[in-house]
Amino acid sequence: MKHCRGGITSVPGFEANGLYCGIKKSRKKDLALIYSSAPCVAAGVFTDNRLTASCIPFNKAQLRKRTARAIIVNSGNANCLTGKIGVKHTSLIAQAASKALKIHQDQVFVGATGVIGEILPIQKILKSIPRLVHGLNRSSGLSCANAILTTDRLPKESACEIVIRGKKIRFGAIAKGAGMIHPHMTNGFSRHATMLCYVATNAAMDKKTLQYALNEAVQNTFNLITVDGDKSTNDMVLILSNGLAKNLEIKGRGKEYKLVFDALLYLFNDLSHQMILDAEGATKLLTVHVTGARNLEDARRAARSITSSTLVKTALFGSDPNWGRIAASVGSSGASVNVNRLMISLGSQKVFLNGEPQRVALKRLHQSFCQKQISITVDLGVGRQSSKAWTCDLSTDYVRINSSYRT
Amino acid sequence: MKHCRGGITSVPGFEANGLYCGIKKSRKKDLALIYSSAPCVAAGVFTDNRLTASCIPFNKAQLRKRTARAIIVNSGNANCLTGKIGVKHTSLIAQAASKALKIHQDQVFVGATGVIGEILPIQKILKSIPRLVHGLNRSSGLSCANAILTTDRLPKESACEIVIRGKKIRFGAIAKGAGMIHPHMTNGFSRHATMLCYVATNAAMDKKTLQYALNEAVQNTFNLITVDGDKSTNDMVLILSNGLAKNLEIKGRGKEYKLVFDALLYLFNDLSHQMILDAEGATKLLTVHVTGARNLEDARRAARSITSSTLVKTALFGSDPNWGRIAASVGSSGASVNVNRLMISLGSQKVFLNGEPQRVALKRLHQSFCQKQISITVDLGVGRQSSKAWTCDLSTDYVRINSSYRT
Repeated sequence: MKHCRGGITSVPGFEANGLYCGIKKSRKKDLALIYSSAPCVAAGVFTDNRLTASCIPFNKAQLRKRTARAIIVNSGNANCLTGKIGVKHTSLIAQAASKALKIHQDQVFVGATGVIGEILPIQKILKSIPRLVHGLNRSSGLSCANAILTTDRLPKESACEIVIRGKKIRFGAIAKGAGMIHPHMTNGFSRHATMLCYVATNAAMDKKTLQYALNEAVQNTFNLITVDGDKSTNDMVLILSNGLAKNLEIKGRGKEYKLVFDALLYLFNDLSHQMILDAEGATKLLTVHVTGARNLEDARRAARSITSSTLVKTALFGSDPNWGRIAASVGSSGASVNVNRLMISLGSQKVFLNGEPQRVALKRLHQSFCQKQISITVDLGVGRQSSKAWTCDLSTDYVRINSSYRT
Repeated sequence: MKHCRGGITSVPGFEANGLYCGIKKSRKKDLALIYSSAPCVAAGVFTDNRLTASCIPFNKAQLRKRTARAIIVNSGNANCLTGKIGVKHTSLIAQAASKALKIHQDQVFVGATGVIGEILPIQKILKSIPRLVHGLNRSSGLSCANAILTTDRLPKESACEIVIRGKKIRFGAIAKGAGMIHPHMTNGFSRHATMLCYVATNAAMDKKTLQYALNEAVQNTFNLITVDGDKSTNDMVLILSNGLAKNLEIKGRGKEYKLVFDALLYLFNDLSHQMILDAEGATKLLTVHVTGARNLEDARRAARSITSSTLVKTALFGSDPNWGRIAASVGSSGASVNVNRLMISLGSQKVFLNGEPQRVALKRLHQSFCQKQISITVDLGVGRQSSKAWTCDLSTDYVRINSSYRT
């Protein structure tokens, strides 16, 4: 696998654009479009929040259609809990995009992110769509990546390439993160953050295989990050696969599937880290590695309990190697743990082993906690399963940003 | 029921004391003792964290003994994850207290709160116990309440009186809260925060009935508060009932049980509110009332999801009536909700009703969010069950306090 420059438009057949249509007070870009010149096979995962933005059920229905060609996304307004008018607005946006793109209405996905409960300025959006379509090109990937952001400081994109039987297959993606990040999206039609990620590939893929690969890759990456533990109403990851690489259609879970899966893992890991490092107020990236778990669910539960702990995250912000808080969150996760075989290490320093706290120079621990990237390993001592999870610190800036989000 | 002044020593037969024995760097009081002149029936609930301080299994074993007479508690050190030596220290403390009090070792409970993973300065504690016992009296209840605090600014005590067949029955309690508060203690031997609460009563009570009343009262009060969502390794509520009121022993769940239960509810509600208002960095008290839930579990889950939301709590701090965050946390709780019958109100202002956001003057909402005590009501629109839950805001001060707890 080869890392490539650029993002979504580095994939043959894909064009994109982003512009300011009038939603954001900051006058930053707030309307994005991704378009494939060829019909695509599509797959997606969505938030399992029981209250969702109107675009979520809309997209689930679109996924059942045969092919897709475009994704249109507004930022600055989540169009969530906006009643019947909100549902209507989602349809109107898809209609306007399909008309301007001269494609079928079934081929358009819609995304949104921003404040919940406010009515979209629909006329501004509809009026801007022809201009958005007119500006589509292969060099506006970054512009598109910028137009899906909310409180993010930086656009997020990633791309890579694999070779299957001599055919070069490219993957490109854009994402947004920053806040309300605790994704738990599963098997096509399920779980949680607002994180958005849109992926393009020129692979020829069977629809079910593509969906399976997406689920598995999301479970091992996006679903293991958290910023604030708040699950959004608008999370989604969508992938469009246009087949222009002319490879033999990838179907089932053989060697070629594994290459595709690894490519998605690579992209999603890269984007997950970009999200955490650019999270609201974040100054540090924490990687938690839980080993020795009875089963995978326990491993993930313990890892996510640590990354979700307010006290662990504030200690991280203060560079305080207060490992008791890590232990407390492991114990409260409900995962099976044997205290007599429990091991906790901060970086390479073991602080708890075989039921006993270890004598470690606090100064050295403190120094390792001053790094920008910190890793914690916890062995639960009861089995062989493991999981990683990622988060950032909880800073005074996070509180400042989120206590005045709308004011 | 009559509210009374004072706390634990306002109950006939109970004496207390608190002093500084040398654990806290601040030189504040860090060793507390509660003593009953008559043998007591005892009941308790404990954290269900799977990693607990050594005093938790110790107290569970003590609860199986016939009677109890004393509770000794140190603050500043949780004596948790301190290995075999920590277990030994708990026994030594109980032994020393029983010796100085001239009571049986089986009659002593031990509590601890503070930093996890540090070895107790046991000699300092043991050396101070005779002085602690010597100073026991009925006017040192507040001194005792002070000695169990950690980051709390204020001591917490509450007392009330009921009359059963002409006998005056008094209840008095002390508590500590402040941080790592997300209790989930159940049926004698179960669940989560560090909150400590010690209750005294002169009622004559059957042990099983006392345990049942304690469980039920804790479920409806302490287990519905959260400060930071972090469940402690040391939470406990203990009640000692010395029978000096000479009432007919209360047994089963009749009218008299109800009076006792209401008295405990009253104390625990009072102490819960004191804890939230004195929580680390807190500037506001939020009361969430979830109604229209399919079942009680859903009602509690939705209410606790709102009070645990970092984004709701930062919005509260910023007086930003961002109700979309409330909706998002309701949806992510997993509780059944019908969006078309969902109602959300901030104070008396309905912001979402029958599937549609309501037009409300933002200025008025903002004003109501500037109050020190704020209430939110959410009707899930699917049933008849309801639950309350309480929390405080998440402030920049909370982050400051917890990023430098040990440094």
